[in-house]
Amino acid sequence: MKRLNWDKVAVLSLFGLLITEAVWAAETLQDVMTRRGLTEKDILAAAKTYVPSGKRDEYIVFSSGGQSGHVIVYGIPSMRLLKYIAVFTPEPWQGYGFDEESKAVLAQGNIQGKAITYGDTHHPALSETNGEYDGEYLFINDKANPRIAVIDLHDFETKQIVVNPVFKSSHGGAFVSENTEYIIESAQYATPYENEYVPLEQFNERYRGGMTYWYFDRAKGRIIPEQSFTVMAPPYSQDLSDFGKGPSADWSFTNSFCSERYVGGIEQGKPPFEAGCSAKDTDFLHVVNWRKAAELVKAGKATLINNHHVITIETAVKEGILYLIPEAKSPHGADVTPDGRYIVVSGKLDTHTSVYSFEKIQQAISAGKFEGKDPYGIPIIAMTDALHTQAELGLGPLHTQFGARKCEAFTSLYVDSMVARWDYCEGKVLDKIAIHYNIGHLMTMHGDTKKPEGKYLVALNKLAIDRFNPVGPLHPQNHQLIDISNEKMTLLYDMPLPLGEPHYAVGINANLLKPIIRYKSGWDSRANQASPYKTLAGREKTVKEPGKVEILGTVIRSHITPEIIEVTEGDDVTIHLTNLERAQDETHGFALYGQNVNLSLEPGKTSSFHFIADKPGVYPYYCTEFCSALHLEMQGYLLVKPKNYQEAAKQAGETAIYTKADYDKQVEKNQATQTTIDQVVAFITSHNYQEFPSVVALMEDATDQLNFAKEAQTKATAAAAKEDWQNAALWAGQWWQYQVKAADIGLRAKAYLEQQGANKTK
Amino acid sequence: MKRLNWDKVAVLSLFGLLITEAVWAAETLQDVMTRRGLTEKDILAAAKTYVPSGKRDEYIVFSSGGQSGHVIVYGIPSMRLLKYIAVFTPEPWQGYGFDEESKAVLAQGNIQGKAITYGDTHHPALSETNGEYDGEYLFINDKANPRIAVIDLHDFETKQIVVNPVFKSSHGGAFVSENTEYIIESAQYATPYENEYVPLEQFNERYRGGMTYWYFDRAKGRIIPEQSFTVMAPPYSQDLSDFGKGPSADWSFTNSFCSERYVGGIEQGKPPFEAGCSAKDTDFLHVVNWRKAAELVKAGKATLINNHHVITIETAVKEGILYLIPEAKSPHGADVTPDGRYIVVSGKLDTHTSVYSFEKIQQAISAGKFEGKDPYGIPIIAMTDALHTQAELGLGPLHTQFGARKCEAFTSLYVDSMVARWDYCEGKVLDKIAIHYNIGHLMTMHGDTKKPEGKYLVALNKLAIDRFNPVGPLHPQNHQLIDISNEKMTLLYDMPLPLGEPHYAVGINANLLKPIIRYKSGWDSRANQASPYKTLAGREKTVKEPGKVEILGTVIRSHITPEIIEVTEGDDVTIHLTNLERAQDETHGFALYGQNVNLSLEPGKTSSFHFIADKPGVYPYYCTEFCSALHLEMQGYLLVKPKNYQEAAKQAGETAIYTKADYDKQVEKNQATQTTIDQVVAFITSHNYQEFPSVVALMEDATDQLNFAKEAQTKATAAAAKEDWQNAALWAGQWWQYQVKAADIGLRAKAYLEQQGANKTK
Repeated sequence: MKRLNWDKVAVLSLFGLLITEAVWAAETLQDVMTRRGLTEKDILAAAKTYVPSGKRDEYIVFSSGGQSGHVIVYGIPSMRLLKYIAVFTPEPWQGYGFDEESKAVLAQGNIQGKAITYGDTHHPALSETNGEYDGEYLFINDKANPRIAVIDLHDFETKQIVVNPVFKSSHGGAFVSENTEYIIESAQYATPYENEYVPLEQFNERYRGGMTYWYFDRAKGRIIPEQSFTVMAPPYSQDLSDFGKGPSADWSFTNSFCSERYVGGIEQGKPPFEAGCSAKDTDFLHVVNWRKAAELVKAGKATLINNHHVITIETAVKEGILYLIPEAKSPHGADVTPDGRYIVVSGKLDTHTSVYSFEKIQQAISAGKFEGKDPYGIPIIAMTDALHTQAELGLGPLHTQFGARKCEAFTSLYVDSMVARWDYCEGKVLDKIAIHYNIGHLMTMHGDTKKPEGKYLVALNKLAIDRFNPVGPLHPQNHQLIDISNEKMTLLYDMPLPLGEPHYAVGINANLLKPIIRYKSGWDSRANQASPYKTLAGREKTVKEPGKVEILGTVIRSHITPEIIEVTEGDDVTIHLTNLERAQDETHGFALYGQNVNLSLEPGKTSSFHFIADKPGVYPYYCTEFCSALHLEMQGYLLVKPKNYQEAAKQAGETAIYTKADYDKQVEKNQATQTTIDQVVAFITSHNYQEFPSVVALMEDATDQLNFAKEAQTKATAAAAKEDWQNAALWAGQWWQYQVKAADIGLRAKAYLEQQGANKTK
Repeated sequence: MKRLNWDKVAVLSLFGLLITEAVWAAETLQDVMTRRGLTEKDILAAAKTYVPSGKRDEYIVFSSGGQSGHVIVYGIPSMRLLKYIAVFTPEPWQGYGFDEESKAVLAQGNIQGKAITYGDTHHPALSETNGEYDGEYLFINDKANPRIAVIDLHDFETKQIVVNPVFKSSHGGAFVSENTEYIIESAQYATPYENEYVPLEQFNERYRGGMTYWYFDRAKGRIIPEQSFTVMAPPYSQDLSDFGKGPSADWSFTNSFCSERYVGGIEQGKPPFEAGCSAKDTDFLHVVNWRKAAELVKAGKATLINNHHVITIETAVKEGILYLIPEAKSPHGADVTPDGRYIVVSGKLDTHTSVYSFEKIQQAISAGKFEGKDPYGIPIIAMTDALHTQAELGLGPLHTQFGARKCEAFTSLYVDSMVARWDYCEGKVLDKIAIHYNIGHLMTMHGDTKKPEGKYLVALNKLAIDRFNPVGPLHPQNHQLIDISNEKMTLLYDMPLPLGEPHYAVGINANLLKPIIRYKSGWDSRANQASPYKTLAGREKTVKEPGKVEILGTVIRSHITPEIIEVTEGDDVTIHLTNLERAQDETHGFALYGQNVNLSLEPGKTSSFHFIADKPGVYPYYCTEFCSALHLEMQGYLLVKPKNYQEAAKQAGETAIYTKADYDKQVEKNQATQTTIDQVVAFITSHNYQEFPSVVALMEDATDQLNFAKEAQTKATAAAAKEDWQNAALWAGQWWQYQVKAADIGLRAKAYLEQQGANKTK
C-alpha cells in the first residue's frame, strides 16, 4: 500500500461518518483533532492508554509516596490513581490514625517513645514466591525514621510497622529475597548504633552503617523482629540493595556513597558534604551472604545491641560473609538481572554503568583473590576481577530495570533526562528516549523479578516544571508512561502526582491481585481477627460503669445504633461500631463533633474510638460516607451531662404529630412503591442475571433491604393495631425508606443488565 | 457522503499507514483497537480527553476531598489529578502541620481548645467578582467541626481557618455572594448555641440552626470574624445554600430537612432519624435578606453570643429579613439560576424539582401574603405563590447546575443514577444519561456563576462498585466526565479518586488562574509577608543563649547550611531555613530523625521548626526532595550533647587524604566539563531561545550555578596557592558539582528547544 495524503483522503472524516449512526457524534475524530491540536501520534497514544468506563487496567502499580508517607496505587495503561494507602501518616478518609485499631499500628512506629506522624517512603517491594510476584504483601521503608511497613494486599491496609533498632536513617529498603524470607533495609547516614551522643570526631571509629535483614513470617503476614538481624558495615552511607536470584539467591548486594567518610562542615568554611562525599572516583558495592549470616545468628555468633542481633564487621570478615567491590562513585541502584547472573550498578556522577558477574565474584572469593582490605579489614575484590562489562549510557545513569527480551535493560539517565535501553550482556546501547525532566528511578512490568513482562516502562521524574497547568510553587511530580513493546520506545502519557514525591514503584499484572470486597462481619482488620467488640443487628448495647461508658453499636443504611448516647462529664467513653452491610462499596463513616474522630467502616469492619468526655455539651455525630438517599439523616447526638447534673422533671417529650391519615397515606405510597419494585424485579429475573456476579450481589443486597422493610412493616402494623398513629406513621415511613434502598439497588442492577446487553430468558 | 463499510474501506489501516513515517508505530490504530477491544466511540472519547505531554488542560477543577480534609485539584478534559491541597488535615509533603508557620494556621481551627487533625470538607466556592469567577481565592467548609478555610490561589496554600462560634455541625458551606463580600455557612444538626449541655427534651426550645455570613476582606485575603454574623434559625437541619445573583443578589436561600424536629432514639425502640426526619412531605426553604441583615448588625441590632453577632429569630422576623417557603422533602441543593431570577430546589425523596420565582417571592413579601407562620413565628410563603414551575425529572433529584444555553439546567438523580438535562423555564426534560453509580452533586464549567460555559459536566458519584480494578473493601469514588456540548450528552471518562470522598466541585477556566512559581526570597507564605527569619546566602548563623539555640540557615542545590548543629540536652531549638533557589520547581525538603518534622521549602520560602532536644544522641537530617544529582549528599547532623558533657581533647580531625595529583586531576576534569557546557551554551544562544520563557528561566538558573562554580573555583585556587591540597581538591570537586548542575539545566534547555523546533539564529 502506498502512502496516502492525509487531507486528500480525508480519512478521519470517513471515520467520523462511521459513527454518525448516533446523533451524539456531533464532532468527527478529525474535528476533535483539529479543535484540540492533536497529531496522529497523539491519537495512537490516546488509544493505547484510554480505558473505557467499567473496563480494567492491565497492570497495577504500587509507588512510594515519598514524604507524604503513603503508598500510591495506580493502573497501567490508563495511569489513573486508584488509591493512596496510608502507611506512616494518619489519614482520616481511611480512618487511619483515627480509630484505636490503626492507632495501635502507628504506635508501633514510635521513635524512642515519640509519635512520628509522617514517613519518607522510598522503595516498595512486592512479596515474591520463587522470584516472582505473588500479589500478597507489599513492604515499604521510611527514610527519615528507619522503619519498614507491611501492607496486606487482600485489603490494601497497613498491618505492621517495625522500627530499625540500630539505624537512625535508612534509604535502601525495602527489597525482598526470592521467597520473601527476608526484607532488606540498609542504613544511609551513618550514626552510632547506640542511642547516645558520640562526637563527629569519632566518626570513623564509632559511627556505623549496615544492612538489616527483617524476617517475614508468611503464615502470620508479619515481620518477626526477634528473628531478624543486622550485618554491621563501615560508615559508608549504604544505599540501595537487591537480593540475588537463582544462582545468586543466597547473596545480597548493597551499594554506597561517601565512602570518603567526609563529615561536612560548610558552616565552618569547609567544602560541603556534596563535595567531600564525591571526591573519590569509586565507592563500594557490599556483597553479603545473607543465608550464611542467618545461620551465624542461629549459631549464636551475633552480638546483641539494643536487644537486636548484630553481626559485627569482625565476625562478618572472619566468617567470610562480607566483601567489597569498587563501583563508580555516588551510585544509585544495585540491580540483579532476571537470571541472577549479573549485578548492574550505575554511578550518578560517572557515565559508566557497570555489569558485575556473580560468577566472577564467587571465583575471586573462592580463590581468595583480593586487591586489599578496607580500613575495617573487609576484603576488597578488584573491580576488574568482578566486572562482566561496562556500558557508557549517558550522563547521570541511576537505576536499572529489565525487559522481557534477552539481556534487555533500561537505565534512567538523570542528567541527560533520558531512558537508555541497552543490552547488558554486550554492554551495547539499543535506543534512547527523552523524558521530562530529570528521571530518578524507572520501572518496567515485573522488571525486578525473574520474569520481566516488558510492555510498559514508567519514568519516575523528579521535576515536572512546564508539563502541567501551574498549581503554585510546589509542583506535582510526573510519571511518564513509555511503550517499550516495539523497537523504538514511545512516550504515551504524562501523569501528574497530586500528593507526595514518589521515588520507586513496582508494577504487577492485575490478574495476580485478589483483594476481598468485604470483611467477615465484626472484623478487626488491623489485627486480622474477629473483633472482641463485634456486634450483631439488634444486639447493640451500652455498658455503663461508674466513670466509664462502652458502646457496642452498629451502622447500616441509613442509621447509626445508638442514636442518642448520654454520658457524664469526665466519663471514659469507648464507641465500637460494626458495619452490618454485606454490599460491595457500602462503607459508612463516623464523625463526632469536637473529638477528632473519623472512622471508615467498610462492610463487615468493626472499629473503635476512645475519648474522655471532658466537657459538658451537645455533640452531634453522623455518617461521613454518602451511603444512601437518607445519608444526611444518618445522625445522632452524644450528650455530656455536667457532673452532679440535676435532672429536670422530664418534659412531655415529643408531641404526637402524626395521625391515622398520615399512616394511611404512607401505606398507600408504600404499596405503589412496591409495585415499582416488583416491576424492576420482574425485569431482572426475566433476564440471565445469574450470569452477572455483580448483579447477583446487588440482588442479595436488595433482598436484605426488602427483609428490613418487612420488619419495619410489622412494627408499623403493630403500632396501627394499637392505634398509636405516631409510631405507626413513622415505622411506615421507615418501611418506605427500605423500599427506596431496594429500588435504588434494583435500578442499578437493571441499568447494568441493559448496558451489558443481558438476554431475556423468560 | 454515503455511509461506508468499516471493514471494506479499512480506514484504520490507512490511518495506520499515515504514521508509518516513524519506525515507532509498530501497531496501527486498528491494531490497538482490536487488541484492546476499543470501539469507535471509545476512540472519540479518548481523543476528546487525551492531553499530550506538555499541553495544558482547558479547565481546572477544585473538588472537596470529603473526610480526607483536603481540596483536590484536577484538569479537564484529561481528568488528571494535579494537587491535593492540605486544608484541615496535616500533610507532610507540603510541610502542612509540620512547620511552625502552617501549625499556626491549623491551630486557628482548634475546637474548644482541642486540636482537630482532620476535616470533612464538602463544598468549595471560588471567589467571584460581579458574579463571575476571578481565580483569586477558594473557600471550603468542614462539616464535622464547623469551620471555613481560605485557600489562596496564588500559591494553592491554606491561609486561614475560622471556627463557627455558634454551630456544632455545618454541611451547607461554602457559597459566596456576588462580589465575595460574604461566605455563607449554615448549621446542619441543630445544637444549643452555647457550649453547654441542654437535654434533648428541650430540642424545640433551646436547639437552634442558622446561617453564618462570614465577612471576607479581599485586600487582606482573610475572613474577618469580628465583622461576620449569624442569622439564627429554627432547629430544622439547614442544608445547602446559595446566594442570589443580579436581581436577587441581596438575598440568600438555604434549604433544610428534618423540619419535623425529630430527635431519634432507635436504641429505645423508636423509629430512627431517617424515618422521623422524612415523615412530612415538605421541608422549608429559608429566604434571607443578607444585605439588610448586615445593616442590622451595623445598627447594633444583633445579640452577642459567644462574642459573635447573632440576629435572633425574633429580630429577623420583626425586621422582615427571614421567610420560609415549603419545599419537597429532604432536599439537597438550592441553586440560583445564572440570571438570578429563579431558585431550583430538588427533594431527594420526591421526584419533583421545583423552580421558585424570585419575583413571585418578593411579590408575596411585599403584599404580606403568607399562608401562616411556623412555630417560631416566621412567615411562610405558600409554595404555590412562589413556584414558577415544577419538573418531574426522575428518582432522587439532588443538585442542579446550569449550562451555557438559555434556560439549560442539569440535575443529578441519585436513585436513578442519571443526569437530567432540562429547561428550567419550561420545566421540560431534554435529555438523560446514565452514570455509575448514585450521583451526588454534579458540576458544569462555571455552572454556578452568572455566565456558565457549558462544554463539560462532571458527575460526582458516590459509589464506584465495579468500575475499576479492585483495591480492597474501601473503593475509590468515581468522577465521570460528560460531554454536554452537543444535543445528546455523552460519557467521556471515568476518573477514580484515590483519596477522600469528594462532595462538590467547581470548575474554572484555566486561563483565569495565575499562580506564582516562586516566592520573594525569605517569604513566610502562610502569613503572606517577609519572614523575620529570612536568611541570605553567606549570612547563615547560629544564635546560642543558655538553654536556647536558634538557627538561621539556607538550602540550595545541594547543601544545607549549616551541616553540623551542636546543641545541649534540654535546649529549646528552632531551625529556620530559607530556600535560596530562584529556579521553578526547585523545592527542597528538610527531615530530621526522631523529631517529626518535614519541611517543604519551595523556591524563596522560609520555614521554621521548633523542638526540645530532650535526648542526647546523633540525629541525621537531609533534603527530602530529589533536587539534583547530589541530592542524597544534601545532609547534615544534629548532635545533642548530654548535659555537663566533658569534651574530650579534640582529636586530630580528619586526615588529609587528597594530594596535588587529586587536585590537578579534578581541575583537568572541570576544564573538560566546561568545554561541554560551552557547547551546550553555544547551541542555545545560536537559537531563538529568548522566545521561550521557560528556557530563559533555565538559562538564569544555569548562570546562577556557573557563578557558584566560579566562587568554588576561587576557593580551590586559593587553597592550591597555599598548597592545602585537601581543601583545594574538595573545592575543585565542589566547582565541578556546580558545573554538573549547570550542564543538567543546559541539557534540559537544549532538549526543550529541539523539541519545540526552535530556529537557528546564528
